[in-house]
Amino acid sequence: MRQRRIKDLDSKIEAFRQYCIDSPGEYKGRWREEFAGSRPFAIEIGCGKGQFITRMSERHPDWMFLGFEGHRSVALHALEKERETGSENVRFVLQYIRSLDEIFADGEVDWIFLNFSDPWPKERHAKRRLTYGEKLKEYARVLSPGGILEFKTDNDGLFEYSLEQVLKQGCFVVEEVTRDLHVAKAPSEYVTTEYEDKFSAAGKSINFMRLKKA
Amino acid sequence: MRQRRIKDLDSKIEAFRQYCIDSPGEYKGRWREEFAGSRPFAIEIGCGKGQFITRMSERHPDWMFLGFEGHRSVALHALEKERETGSENVRFVLQYIRSLDEIFADGEVDWIFLNFSDPWPKERHAKRRLTYGEKLKEYARVLSPGGILEFKTDNDGLFEYSLEQVLKQGCFVVEEVTRDLHVAKAPSEYVTTEYEDKFSAAGKSINFMRLKKA
Repeated sequence: MRQRRIKDLDSKIEAFRQYCIDSPGEYKGRWREEFAGSRPFAIEIGCGKGQFITRMSERHPDWMFLGFEGHRSVALHALEKERETGSENVRFVLQYIRSLDEIFADGEVDWIFLNFSDPWPKERHAKRRLTYGEKLKEYARVLSPGGILEFKTDNDGLFEYSLEQVLKQGCFVVEEVTRDLHVAKAPSEYVTTEYEDKFSAAGKSINFMRLKKA
Repeated sequence: MRQRRIKDLDSKIEAFRQYCIDSPGEYKGRWREEFAGSRPFAIEIGCGKGQFITRMSERHPDWMFLGFEGHRSVALHALEKERETGSENVRFVLQYIRSLDEIFADGEVDWIFLNFSDPWPKERHAKRRLTYGEKLKEYARVLSPGGILEFKTDNDGLFEYSLEQVLKQGCFVVEEVTRDLHVAKAPSEYVTTEYEDKFSAAGKSINFMRLKKA
């Protein structure tokens, strides 16, 4: 995502301190106790400018949301959106994360959202894709029994690769697939990201899958 | 499917002779010329009592339909339905077929419907499943470029097996998957079989996939 360099980024982010979690690893095994309570606990990996997660948090005030975004100048927009909406049930981690296992104990998360992840089209970069086999196993570990993973992308190649990985790993049951989300469903049935609005307006169909922990 | 023995089955079927094709192999390579013309040409493998194919033929009067059903006492109901609806665009083959390659040249069919096929749950019978890998390759061969295969079943195990086979063979792109067709879509968006009505009324969710020839 191309971004202008933002002056005084750190001090700008500092102003949103109450929305950020700086050391997420410290919550490992205690997210329910300290954060989500008995509410469904959803995370978005790569929440970008935050449209999806803030709209989801408004739509589901009884859920708790945590958004991860390592690109801090992008994440600043998410923080600003969060201030506008003022929802109490969303927080952010402004770091690239190597492994969810460092942050969550097994079964600690109920929903994972992956939206428009980087396709890493070159074969030698396959391991960087967020739907690489080992990553899928990681998601399955941190999800609670019956936990859900939803994945959307405009990239057909990444989508087909991801479906193959899912079937190969066997840690998820494929609950739903559509190659054209905005035709298959009524607008009230999904929440879009900024990218999704742009691609969709340009006539690109959106691939969607919902997986359930096996 | 349990059925009463039907007296004089052959003479009863004989009365519907105009709806039946006795030697489908003779049409191989000539289905368009002799039968479908420029219309979309759809086949249902295992059409049972014929509700799906006769309703589809009414819904799509501009398509040509061919139903295969080897169980002749079951197929008799399909013939009776066909007489009631009087649609001109559906014909039947009352034989078990070993291989579609004996009947269709490559690329000769536009749509294939598999509805509630026998799950053959024992591993040693896997090759009899209509979504066994080699069968899928056969379907892909007889389908035209961009041709579609739709598969529905109440059997979750068969569905998951089928999806694995699809991904393994790679001759189809997964266009759509839903584990609960009647919830995911409005009733106007699908046509049911007799089995489907019964299972669905009993609360069983219907698995559906749509595949496109790769």
